[in-house]
Order: sequence, then C-alpha cells, then structure tokens
Amino acid sequence: MIRFNNDYNCGAHPKILEALAVTNTESYGGYGLDPWCEKASAEIRKYLNCPEAQVHFMVGGTQTNYTVISAALRPYQSVISADSGHIHVHETGAVEHCGHKIQALPHQNGKISASQIAAEAELYRTSGVQEHITQPKLVYLSFPTEYGTIYTKQELEAISAVCREYGMYLFIDGARLGYGLGAQDADVTIADIARLADVFYCGGTKCGALFGEAVVFTDPSLAVDFRSYIKQNGAMLAKGWLLGLQFYTLFKDGLYFDITRKADEYAMMIRKAFAEKSVPFYIDSTTNQQFVILENKILEKLSKKYVYEYEMKIDDTHSCVRFCTSWSTTEEDVQELIRDIRQL
Amino acid sequence: MIRFNNDYNCGAHPKILEALAVTNTESYGGYGLDPWCEKASAEIRKYLNCPEAQVHFMVGGTQTNYTVISAALRPYQSVISADSGHIHVHETGAVEHCGHKIQALPHQNGKISASQIAAEAELYRTSGVQEHITQPKLVYLSFPTEYGTIYTKQELEAISAVCREYGMYLFIDGARLGYGLGAQDADVTIADIARLADVFYCGGTKCGALFGEAVVFTDPSLAVDFRSYIKQNGAMLAKGWLLGLQFYTLFKDGLYFDITRKADEYAMMIRKAFAEKSVPFYIDSTTNQQFVILENKILEKLSKKYVYEYEMKIDDTHSCVRFCTSWSTTEEDVQELIRDIRQL
Amino acid sequence: MIRFNNDYNCGAHPKILEALAVTNTESYGGYGLDPWCEKASAEIRKYLNCPEAQVHFMVGGTQTNYTVISAALRPYQSVISADSGHIHVHETGAVEHCGHKIQALPHQNGKISASQIAAEAELYRTSGVQEHITQPKLVYLSFPTEYGTIYTKQELEAISAVCREYGMYLFIDGARLGYGLGAQDADVTIADIARLADVFYCGGTKCGALFGEAVVFTDPSLAVDFRSYIKQNGAMLAKGWLLGLQFYTLFKDGLYFDITRKADEYAMMIRKAFAEKSVPFYIDSTTNQQFVILENKILEKLSKKYVYEYEMKIDDTHSCVRFCTSWSTTEEDVQELIRDIRQL
Amino acid sequence: MIRFNNDYNCGAHPKILEALAVTNTESYGGYGLDPWCEKASAEIRKYLNCPEAQVHFMVGGTQTNYTVISAALRPYQSVISADSGHIHVHETGAVEHCGHKIQALPHQNGKISASQIAAEAELYRTSGVQEHITQPKLVYLSFPTEYGTIYTKQELEAISAVCREYGMYLFIDGARLGYGLGAQDADVTIADIARLADVFYCGGTKCGALFGEAVVFTDPSLAVDFRSYIKQNGAMLAKGWLLGLQFYTLFKDGLYFDITRKADEYAMMIRKAFAEKSVPFYIDSTTNQQFVILENKILEKLSKKYVYEYEMKIDDTHSCVRFCTSWSTTEEDVQELIRDIRQL
Repeated sequence: MIRFNNDYNCGAHPKILEALAVTNTESYGGYGLDPWCEKASAEIRKYLNCPEAQVHFMVGGTQTNYTVISAALRPYQSVISADSGHIHVHETGAVEHCGHKIQALPHQNGKISASQIAAEAELYRTSGVQEHITQPKLVYLSFPTEYGTIYTKQELEAISAVCREYGMYLFIDGARLGYGLGAQDADVTIADIARLADVFYCGGTKCGALFGEAVVFTDPSLAVDFRSYIKQNGAMLAKGWLLGLQFYTLFKDGLYFDITRKADEYAMMIRKAFAEKSVPFYIDSTTNQQFVILENKILEKLSKKYVYEYEMKIDDTHSCVRFCTSWSTTEEDVQELIRDIRQL
Repeated sequence: MIRFNNDYNCGAHPKILEALAVTNTESYGGYGLDPWCEKASAEIRKYLNCPEAQVHFMVGGTQTNYTVISAALRPYQSVISADSGHIHVHETGAVEHCGHKIQALPHQNGKISASQIAAEAELYRTSGVQEHITQPKLVYLSFPTEYGTIYTKQELEAISAVCREYGMYLFIDGARLGYGLGAQDADVTIADIARLADVFYCGGTKCGALFGEAVVFTDPSLAVDFRSYIKQNGAMLAKGWLLGLQFYTLFKDGLYFDITRKADEYAMMIRKAFAEKSVPFYIDSTTNQQFVILENKILEKLSKKYVYEYEMKIDDTHSCVRFCTSWSTTEEDVQELIRDIRQL
Repeated sequence: MIRFNNDYNCGAHPKILEALAVTNTESYGGYGLDPWCEKASAEIRKYLNCPEAQVHFMVGGTQTNYTVISAALRPYQSVISADSGHIHVHETGAVEHCGHKIQALPHQNGKISASQIAAEAELYRTSGVQEHITQPKLVYLSFPTEYGTIYTKQELEAISAVCREYGMYLFIDGARLGYGLGAQDADVTIADIARLADVFYCGGTKCGALFGEAVVFTDPSLAVDFRSYIKQNGAMLAKGWLLGLQFYTLFKDGLYFDITRKADEYAMMIRKAFAEKSVPFYIDSTTNQQFVILENKILEKLSKKYVYEYEMKIDDTHSCVRFCTSWSTTEEDVQELIRDIRQL
Repeated sequence: MIRFNNDYNCGAHPKILEALAVTNTESYGGYGLDPWCEKASAEIRKYLNCPEAQVHFMVGGTQTNYTVISAALRPYQSVISADSGHIHVHETGAVEHCGHKIQALPHQNGKISASQIAAEAELYRTSGVQEHITQPKLVYLSFPTEYGTIYTKQELEAISAVCREYGMYLFIDGARLGYGLGAQDADVTIADIARLADVFYCGGTKCGALFGEAVVFTDPSLAVDFRSYIKQNGAMLAKGWLLGLQFYTLFKDGLYFDITRKADEYAMMIRKAFAEKSVPFYIDSTTNQQFVILENKILEKLSKKYVYEYEMKIDDTHSCVRFCTSWSTTEEDVQELIRDIRQL
C-alpha cells in the first residue's frame, strides 16, 4: 500500500536518523538545556530577522497549542479561531480543558479575515456587559490551514494590524509551516511570519522530524517563564537535545524548506492529474494536502493500492477525500498515482 | 423610572421578607443541613411525581450551571447547547473555565431540536477519530429560552428520547422556570420536566426570591457527592436555611406558580398593546420577556419613563429591545406602559 | 438549645433586616452596579486611608478565596498558607480545582511567620530547577486565624515586607475580620490591614450580615477586570444591591466593629469561666472562638443544653471542642453558660 | 566529563536505534494505532499474568502522571502521595493544574506505609464534614522511590489491601521500574506490581529508550476512553509506532530487565567503594541512585572529572549529592570512578 493519507506516516529524514546515530553515545544535560537546542535556536533565528526571538522545543502540536494559549491568556480571556481550526475540531477540547473558550468564526477556504476578527474584538470592546462575556485576547491561525490553503502577506498584515489595534496576540500554528512557505503562490516568508505574529511554531513532526515543534516567541514578554508552562503541561522532553538535534539538522542549510517545497510540487502534480480528469476539488489548495471529490466506486478501486484519508460524505455516490504528500513521498509513488488517476 | 428591563430588579416577594423576619433570631445548622431546606425539598418534590428526586439549593444561575456540568462530565466530555444558550453567551466562559467544550448548535427561536441533537451525537458515535474530538454527554436547554420561547411537551419528549438513546444527560436551566410553565400556551408541567430531564432547576432569583436556585436531580446517580461539588465551587451558602426558607415559602401553596403566571399575563397585555400598534417582534414569546423592534426615536421617548434592556441594532433607525415583566411588576405600571404604547 | 457552635447560625443584625424591608419595593440595576454598592464601598474606604482602594462584594468566603487567587496567579504559581489555613483544610480543594498548588507551612498557634515565608520564597529564588517547581506568588493569611489567634502589627509588617521583597501578593482572609480587630490585645487596625495587604476582605457572613464578603484591593493592578473573574466564578449576585445594602448598614457608624467587639468580650467572659475551673485550652485565643479541652462526660452533660463544635479527640476521655460567640450571641446565653461552667 | 548525574543523559540502547533505522522508510497508521504498539503491548503483557491488561504508550513521566490522575479522579477527589513524591515536588504543580489536591504524607526513606494511608482514608470516611474536604481516591507511589529505595512485596500488599478496602486506586509511578525490579534485594516482580496496582507504568525514558512510558491498566474500568485523555493532554504522539517499536525492543527477550539490573550492579559497586571509605549515605538505596554525603572540597575535586547531581547542603562543609548509573553507564567509567573514590 502506498500512503497518501497524511504527512506523518514515516519516520524521519535520513539526515536526522544519521544525526541521532552519530550522537547516541554522547551525553547531555537534560530538559532542553544542551548545546543542540542552542544551536538549533540559532539556526532558526537566522531566518527570522528577529534576534531577540526566543525558541522553545516541544514534542507535538496539540500540546504546543494549548501550552502557548495557557501561557498567553488569563482565565476570562478567549481565543478567536476559524471554525475549521485544529484547536476547535481535532484536539479533544484541549484548549477548553485549559479553561479557555474558543470563539469560532466561520471560515472561508479554511481562513478567517481581518474584518471578521475586528468585528469580534469590537463586539467586546463596545459591549456594555463585558464582565458577562469572555475577552478575545489571542487570534489563532493555521499556516497553511487545515484545508491546505495559505494566507497572503496582505491578509496576514491586515490580521496582524487588527490584533495590535485591539491588544490581541497573534499565534500562528505552523504544524505544516514548511508546506505553506513552499507553496508556489506563497508570498510570505518565515521572516514575515516572525514579524507579523507574536508567537508561532515551525512544525517538525509533519516536516521531516521524528517529532517536535519549534515554538518561536517574537514578543519576549509572552515567553516569561515559558519553561514552567512547558514542564507543567507535560511537554518538557527529558532528553531535550533530541529536539534540538533534529531542528538543527532541518534548519542548517535549509533542509526544512527544501523537503517541504518538494512535497508541495508533488501535490501539485497530483492535483494537475485530477484536474485533467475534471475531478472537482473540495477546496483549492496549493500545498501538500489536496481535497478531491470522487465517486465512491473509484475510491474503492484506488483504495486497493493507496491509503488516502476519508473526509466526508458529499452525496450518496461521492465522497471528499484527502491525498497528502510529505517530505517522505517519493517521485515513484507520485508517478504511479498519476498514472492510475489518468486511467480512472 | 419604571423598570421593565429585567426580572431581577426588585427584592423579594413580601412573604419571603416576612419569613426572614420571623425566623431571624432562630438559630440553625449551617451549609444547608437544616429543617427549612428539608421542608422546601419536600414541598418541591410534591409537584414532581418523583419521590427519589434530590434537591439542592444554590445561590445563582451561573454557578448552578457550571457546577452541575462539572459534576456530570468527565474532562473529555462536552455540552450541547443552543448558540443562544446562556452558558454559551453570558457566563464569561464559566463552563470552559471548568474544562468543558460547548458544542453550540444554531437555534431556532431560541430552541434546538431533537434532530439537531441526534445529528451531533451521531457524528461522535460514528466518528473514526473519537479520541480527537470531545464526546457530547450533556444537553443543556433553557426553559423558557433566553428569547422567552418555550419547548412543547412533544419537543421535550423527543429531545429526552434522543438523550437516553445516546446516553446523554438532559439538563434544563430553569432560571425562569415559573414564567415558562405559566405561559398560556405551555403544555408542559413541572412533573413533565422532572420526568424528561435528568437534572433541572427552579429559579428563585428571577421568580420571587432574593436569590437562590433549587437544583433537582431526578437521576440520583448524577447527584453522588453533589454537596462536595457545591462546596468546591464556592456555591455552598453558610446560612443555607435562607435558601430553604425562601423556596419553602415559594412552593408552599403554589406561590411560585401564581406570581410568575401573573407576570406572563402582564407581558401578554404589553405584547398585545405593541401588536395593536403593528410594532414587530424580534421573536414570538409567550412568557415574561418580550422582544420588540422599535424606532430609535420612539425608544428615546420611552426611555424617559421606562427602563428596558437594549438588545441589538436592527438598522440605522431601529433597535431590538426587551420589555420584561416579573413577579414584582405591578398592574399600574403595566397599564401605564400600555397607555403610552397606544399613544406612540 | 443554645448555640455556641459557630458564628453563622443566625440570620442578620436587625438593622440589616430593616434595611432590606425598607428597600424591598425599590428597583435597582443588577450585578452590583447600583447606588448601595457604591455607598458601601465609600463607607468601607473611609476606614482604610487608601482612597484608591477598589471594593467588590461577593457572597461567601470560599468563592472569595479562590476567585481572588485565580485572578492573582498565573498557572504555574502557587500559594503559601499555614497548614491550618481554611483554603488548605476546609474548602474541598477549591484552590487546586482552580489549578494552583498550596504550599502549606506548619503553623504555630494558627499562624506562620515572616521567616518561614522568606525561606520558602528563597528556596524558589535560588532553585536551579525553577521550571520544575511552582513559584510562590501569593501569601494567604487569616486574620484572625482558624484558631482564633491574631497576628500582631509587627508580625504583619514583617510578613508584608517579605512579600514585597520577593514580589509576592499578601492576601488576608478576613472572614472574621471584625472579631480579630476587636480583640482586646489587637494592635492592628483595618487601615493597617489595608496598608500591609494587597487584597483582603471584610467578612459579612460571620459578622452580622445574612451573607456577603467585601473584597478590598489596595493594589488596583491586581483588580484589573476583577468583575470578569467574579462572574466567571459564579460569584456575581444578580441582586448585588443586597450586598451593598448590608455592608453599608454594617460600616455606616461602625456597627461592624461594635458587634464583633462585643462578641469577643463575651468569648473572654466564657474563657475566664473555663480558666477559673482550670479547664485547659487547646490554643490561646483572644477572639470569639475558644478551643477548650474537656472530659467527654462533661461534654455530654453540656450537650444537653448547648451546641458546641467538636474539633478532635485528645485522648480516650478528653476532646477538644470549640465554643464560639458571635454578633448574635446574647448576654443571657453567655451568663447561663458561665453559670453552668462554674458548676461543672 | 563522565556523567553520573542522572539516568537520562544518553540517547537510546543501540538496539533501539537499530530498530528505528530499519523501519525508517516503512509507513504506519498514526496515533498509536499500528502493529508495533500492538506487538509491544503483547510483549509487556507476557510478564504480567494479567491478560486483560490494557497498555498505552505516552511520551514522558509528568504527562503520564497527570493524565492518569486526571482520568481516574472526579474534581473533588485527591491524591495521597509521599511528600517526597515526584508529582508533589518536581512537576510544577501539574496535578493541581489538573484540579486535584495532593495530600502529602511524610515519607520514611522515600516511602509511605499502609497505616499512614489507612489513617488518611479513615479520616475522610469518618469525617462529619466530608463535603468540606477532598476525598482521597488514588494513592501514588514511586517504585523505586525518588530516593532509590524500594517497597517490599509485603509493604505493597498491605498498601494494596488498604486501597481496596477504602475504594482507592493504587497508581505506581515506574519511571525507573527496571532499576527497582533489578535491585539485589527486590522481592517484587512486575507481575506483583500488576496484581497489586490498578495502574502503573514501565518507564522507558530512563531505562534504555529515547523516550516513552508504557502505562498498564490492570483495572480496565479505569482505562475507559483513555485515548481521549491522552489526546486532550497533548500526550498522543503522532508517530506512535516510535513508542511501540522502542518498547517492543526493550521487552522482547527481557532487554529492559537486563540493562537496568546491570546499572543497579554498577551502582552497588560504587556504593561499596564509598562505604569502604566510610562515606556516609543520606539514605540507603539498593538501586541505581546513590545519595552520598561528601565534603565540599572532595566534591570540587570530583567535579573536575565527573558530573553528579547536587541535592542539598548538609552543613557548611558537606553536601548531599547523587551518583546515578543507568543502562548507558559503562564498566570503564564505573571502574574509573571507583579508583578515584579509593584515592579520596
């Protein structure tokens, strides 16, 4: 079976395994206080144009999301998110478990707009009963979104401006950051992200690492005692250098960006093949996730050779499914899928 | 100024003040372990046709809502509510502060339907990724709703049946229970509520008491150690007999039902006056809350004599406002308002 | 039966009932936004020598304790308390339920010392593993303590100085504040409390009111958006003027101080009677709570006429019990008890 | 520098790295639903004599501790632990952050006794004010303890019996389980642990894995929907097979037990060397952690070649430090340390 179901179905980029092997008998200080974490931070900062940025390494996306939110908010403050946002739909209520309401706004193509956010913030600002409602204090975006779409630089600048106007933090979930930045139509760089967000993360789990997310605070005031939050939320890896080592390997020489851009290209090849067969797309994505609408009997046929992710029923004979490439996708597998699409 | 802004702008029914005066020099055991709480429970149970019902007295609605929900749910379980539900829009995220997600469904006239609830429950039941989403385990309804509308017996029976089918609790917020039961078109009795819900409360604060809500568990398994939850959530009144005494006074001889029914009648008289002037209603309510759409200049005029509650802007020249009667509304004030409406 | 078991077994001071009766047909704005709350705040502030103090009214002690602590602390911060502190032993883990650890220090006569507190704070400051432990950020004291003892001005000044040195808040639980200030050996005034604490409260429930606690923030930065915390924690009384009215009645003309001082005097008369019979005291208290060690058969005899509170077994034939006076204790009852003590 | 400071300063056992390398290009289902997790569970179950045991894999100890506790307890229930317990002293209040009080009992050699636990449980059972205090519902033990000591089979049986008598869960933190079971004087097997505890875990992080803890529920009722708790608490590794693969490698053929037993032997050799020089021990441990009291100037000398962990000041010239062996400790390093100890 060839897996196109997600971008976390394979181990790690060979260079990472190699780095683990080379350092396996070395010994290090624990809990992220080691040279590899320092070196990885330095490598990441090189891309940011923000020398005061603070980098922390965590294990997974859900824990990163709720830990950052937990650190940023007071108990009566809430999060603005798209109703398709990962924290709203796929994290078992982790943000609410930490005590915070999510104010979910209807998405368009997985995105929310500066004006939607401003309207929500304005509603609070002008409310006569502020103490009866939660205060929106942090805006959560995914880049790319859960539907594989990306915000333009103009959109992000507008959102960032609204956040600053209303005193809200902008937090960008970059679990798939590489795939977003690598899209052919992306006009945003990681330095733009660093400039416009107060905190964001570079996802490792889905972008070449065994696991790991690198959280970047560009607003250092937000990062005060963040290690205490990491520890309290069970997110402090004892052998923290494993995270530093992986991110060092990924960011040194830009491997992170190369392997995700390649996956985007593969996705666009698959997309083109579907488009040529007039297969409709559920949503237009230029990144590694492609959401197509297919006849159920075609899906059944494809399922004999490929693993894709079922998304939802469209009608009695059609479903929406996701085909997802990743850093580990091979050109051979892509070509095979394209051949099979052409013969549908 | 004559207040029609809400149903909690006056002290208590005179009989309650009298009862407080008569017992003021008596001394009692603390924390709700006193004869008045027992007697009040017995009086309430008389109406319920449910001898095993457990009654607990709490101070206010928000604390009752989140304490009951906190006691009913495990951390990964969530609440289904109308998106107009009080817990979702006016309790400063108290339910989320307790760790639980609210799955808000679009309301129709303030209500949600059995089929909406079933769809949500079915979504979880058939999900292939249950561990990534929260489990809906409690359905929260308001009777009457935040818009003054009421569920029919048939609607409640259907909702209750869905809850039982999917193993969910039905929790009815009765902050204004009397006004709902007293509506001219209500076909539901308090015994129906007790039969169909697992837990509900009879609001005192808005229905004649100084303060207080009587929580009724008809499913005793849900009430295990509920006093621990009351205490932990700061909701255990030291002088608990003050609550028992008030509810005893309200339920003995049906005072609770009489005074709220009367307020409903007043509200319908006001409603009729507005209707005769062809004033449109934002929503059709048969209980003590009436939501009308008026020209801003008319509102300005009315505001010189009356306090109403502003709800929202309708357009540049119109607003929706609430006129609310209560147990403390006098016929004189109602007649005066009606005269003024007629002269609009 | 004559109750000496606690200080919350009777309704309210007659002046309060009278005020409730007089205002019962008046109507007011809700949620504490009313003239009585304003007037009560002004009366309280008169005693404080702190014109910028912010006063908020809440219903009960437990909810006040955890709401203040919830507002003051970030998730990784903890509370320093005596191990006999009410929040540690009698609030069903409410503080932990809000997410905060209590660092309990061994009490001496119900009190903790500046040096104990400094040692705990220093432990954190000099820890090499700060992110693995909680940061003590708030010191909780009771005045008087749960054992009826009181801190001297010198002790409070030393504690306050330590708090300021280490950047910790000082929070004084004044559920029985009147009884503490009224003790014959008290050298502390309410203005001293205001000067030395960052937040404290004047208990109403145990000091003449039906219910209610007046929270005073002398550090206004700590009170930012405190009404949101009150609401979220279910502690915002809909008819907030009931609280304002009671505290206005208590503080206008110093009634609060008079009635609690009187109760202290009664307690000292009872104490003297026990002492003359060489009955040992569990702890030396000069306030309204007296802890005596009596033979079980004497207790049995007393229990036919008096209600006292059982505290603990001392040995097979002796127990420690509490005799507690209050604002509602009458001289007749005190004299009767004294006569009976003399005849033991 | 030779590290004896802790047991998590090196990567992983070579067999684990090898397994990662071999499987790196294989693709798997996510979130622990993969063949390696199944195979690892089966291997672990072989040792347990408990075929119905449920095994879940998590990343680290702190997250395992609070997630298990969060799943086991209702909000008003608390945990009994030694005051030296890891959850009480080194997890940044994670258990309290989840809402639960820890009732810390004074340890003897890092352990608490059945009678201490029974006394605490009895205190609740016989309390007249149960709703004012938390209900102890789970007993947390570490095996071996934070001081390297181990419970005897008789001690564990007595504790387990108390837990069952009072309806409390027994949860054993086995972050260092291998080192405990491998001690020369251990009379407890992993099957004993499974029989006596309701839930425990086999630590991987400190016992040969890169990371990972295998949680074993022998009471399946405690494990209901545990995957939801794992996800909600950010503890569900996307590439879950990395955990399964590591534990399969460790438990297949008993590697886990072999490498930890060896580390214990090395620790005993070091212990003997210290003892021969009459160096006093802070506590008597038979596992891989040795707590010795040394002169500061000797420590300074040792610190030029060795990394140990500073524990605490004993007096002006002496300190307690930890020398810790692990699965990665080499005989050469041990011999070198012993030589240097002999020359002190």
